[in-house]
Amino acid sequence: MNLSRDNLSSLRIDANRLWQSLMTLAQIGGTDKGGVCRLALTDLDRQGRDLVTSWAREAGMTVTVDQIGNVFMRRPGRQPDLPPIMTGSHIDTQPTGGKFDGNYGVLAGLEVVRCLNDHGIETEAPIEVAFWTNEEGSRFVPVMMGSGVFAGAFSLEHAYKAQDQEGKTVLQELQRIGYVGSEVPGQHPVGAYFETHIEQGPVLEDAGVTIGVVSGSLGIRWFDCIVTGMEAHAGPTPMPLRRDALQVATQLMQAVVDSALQHAPHARGTVGMVHVHPNSRNVIPGRVKFSIDLRNNTDAGVDAMAEEIRSVAESLQARTGLSIELTLVSSFSATAFHEECISAITDATVQLGYSHMPVVSGAGHDAIYAARLAPSGMIFIPCKDGISHNEIEDAKPADIEAGCNVLLHAMLAKAKVVLPP
Amino acid sequence: MNLSRDNLSSLRIDANRLWQSLMTLAQIGGTDKGGVCRLALTDLDRQGRDLVTSWAREAGMTVTVDQIGNVFMRRPGRQPDLPPIMTGSHIDTQPTGGKFDGNYGVLAGLEVVRCLNDHGIETEAPIEVAFWTNEEGSRFVPVMMGSGVFAGAFSLEHAYKAQDQEGKTVLQELQRIGYVGSEVPGQHPVGAYFETHIEQGPVLEDAGVTIGVVSGSLGIRWFDCIVTGMEAHAGPTPMPLRRDALQVATQLMQAVVDSALQHAPHARGTVGMVHVHPNSRNVIPGRVKFSIDLRNNTDAGVDAMAEEIRSVAESLQARTGLSIELTLVSSFSATAFHEECISAITDATVQLGYSHMPVVSGAGHDAIYAARLAPSGMIFIPCKDGISHNEIEDAKPADIEAGCNVLLHAMLAKAKVVLPP
Repeated sequence: MNLSRDNLSSLRIDANRLWQSLMTLAQIGGTDKGGVCRLALTDLDRQGRDLVTSWAREAGMTVTVDQIGNVFMRRPGRQPDLPPIMTGSHIDTQPTGGKFDGNYGVLAGLEVVRCLNDHGIETEAPIEVAFWTNEEGSRFVPVMMGSGVFAGAFSLEHAYKAQDQEGKTVLQELQRIGYVGSEVPGQHPVGAYFETHIEQGPVLEDAGVTIGVVSGSLGIRWFDCIVTGMEAHAGPTPMPLRRDALQVATQLMQAVVDSALQHAPHARGTVGMVHVHPNSRNVIPGRVKFSIDLRNNTDAGVDAMAEEIRSVAESLQARTGLSIELTLVSSFSATAFHEECISAITDATVQLGYSHMPVVSGAGHDAIYAARLAPSGMIFIPCKDGISHNEIEDAKPADIEAGCNVLLHAMLAKAKVVLPP
Repeated sequence: MNLSRDNLSSLRIDANRLWQSLMTLAQIGGTDKGGVCRLALTDLDRQGRDLVTSWAREAGMTVTVDQIGNVFMRRPGRQPDLPPIMTGSHIDTQPTGGKFDGNYGVLAGLEVVRCLNDHGIETEAPIEVAFWTNEEGSRFVPVMMGSGVFAGAFSLEHAYKAQDQEGKTVLQELQRIGYVGSEVPGQHPVGAYFETHIEQGPVLEDAGVTIGVVSGSLGIRWFDCIVTGMEAHAGPTPMPLRRDALQVATQLMQAVVDSALQHAPHARGTVGMVHVHPNSRNVIPGRVKFSIDLRNNTDAGVDAMAEEIRSVAESLQARTGLSIELTLVSSFSATAFHEECISAITDATVQLGYSHMPVVSGAGHDAIYAARLAPSGMIFIPCKDGISHNEIEDAKPADIEAGCNVLLHAMLAKAKVVLPP
């Protein structure tokens, strides 16, 4: 290839090869319904890891593994001392998972390398493709385990002790499948980190847009709420003498949604879990326990929502005399991805002519932990009906192709190609 | 006793004797917490029945039993062909029942007879005290079984076949405890029927009133409601793209309460049972099933409430696009007690100088079935905190006494005492 700015910008990945790789990997743990069940650190996970690393070696990459089993597949750069421009995701799945969640991010990275190989393009910085151990958290908690240990969110020892339902530990299972490496997690240099992923939500499909440029991840506050009234027979108890816990709880449940609507467009407010006591048709509920999930794109934004909910709870309690307890049970900070990575993704998208829009990530991703150590960014593509964690998870080949082309050019912008004068 | 209008009106029951009888009967099946567990047709029920009928025979009464085990204890009148003026209730209890529910009504009737005996007062019509089989329905359904068979609400054969959790039938257990009588249920004449009962609700205590003159029982409509949306991850799904079944369901739950408030004072609206699917903290609910219990003092009134709920459901469905299914699962007609009985109770209360107010019965009672066959009425007295079906059920001795005095004079008014000229 006679390298020039023009033909560099016309570089495209091989969509068919990427699709075939996705379909081949999906056969390991493939389900009758077209999904994938390949839980972390099982024999199937080992087969998947072995397949992906064999493809990497065929593409001329070197493979290193760290102590939590994160795998780094490296294509050398002209300046070997530069920290690598990295992409990655995970290849473990939910028990009833799909073909694309995680796997797409890993194989898109591999396709970038194959594409560069096809055209003999050297980058200044090395290119690396990582896959992180146990992102899904289905078999072992915490979720995003490999990237979490890498980022120092929790310790290697803590992760090693995690047990599955049969009592097998992460360390035992890592050893069994042969993926305990020698590298100390977090000591692997990273120049910048990109991750392509299906959106796992409905926004892009609804907007008819191909590329979501992810600005960051939402801050999350989880509360438990308990409303305590007085249970009593539904028949003999007139309305003014009731202390109906559900009647008060439903007002607070609506306030959760109202608060999210007030903080549009990124705020979300969800009551997902409700337990009514004694839950009998003709007994006025004496106690209602429910969950509150608040999210927003800044910590200040989600804290403002939490403050509103507390305020509504206090005035409801004062007005009704019923006790309302709000307990914060979990809190996750909002993450803003790095301006340089966001620009690289946006520029690549514009250059490629794909429709695009800024989006936020409502779900957890390895990139959120990677962002603690290096400039990071994410590329979302639409998935059918916004559905994931489901065997019917689906994505269009054209979108799979587009996301990988964006990844290619964003990584090239960061890894740098020296053009002939 | 030198009978005159004056000393007839000054007649009072023996409050201490009534209280002692209540406490003695409460020992059969008495619990550590001061309640009673005496389930229908158990050995304890037999012991209770034997004790009460032995007291009746000591008071000179004759005892007959019908085929469903209802017991009629008769004090003769001067005109034996007149249908008896009857009172009664039940002596079976809930598993964690109290000392007063049912038992008070039966022993208040016995105390009326003992009082008349003390003073040598003859009535024109016979006086009868009944206790009805299996009012509580804890061991065998349907509830109010004895009075229901008596009133023709369901057949003797249907009741006989009812089984407890061990598979024992009502007929087997009636035979075992020796309480299958020969009388055909419903063929026993009744001139008028009165029942004294603790209120099982908080109205009288809240109002500081001693006697509740019961105007009737509430009509009831029970619905199941299913709201179907779309379950989705709470993180990646923005508010405008959600189909949150709980958010819609809570609006309808509030409409149930609003409707009851609009139809004050007798209407009640209760959502007692809620099931959320999948009931997970970070998943938007895809389906919510809940119960609706509507009550009012007329069938037209409760039907109007049901119509309002249907209308709200329809407009919610139209506005949100979520499916809302409303299914009527049970319907009970409102009962109006007989004007003559209500007057007799009111007149007695006024004459005795007790505070009184009209109330409705929200719970089921044997008197509601008796009202199908004869003029009927009920006398409520306050119970502590409105609590019943609980071992801590309690009532004040002064109220117990007052209700029994009202019963005495209401029954005398109907059974008639011929005074000397």
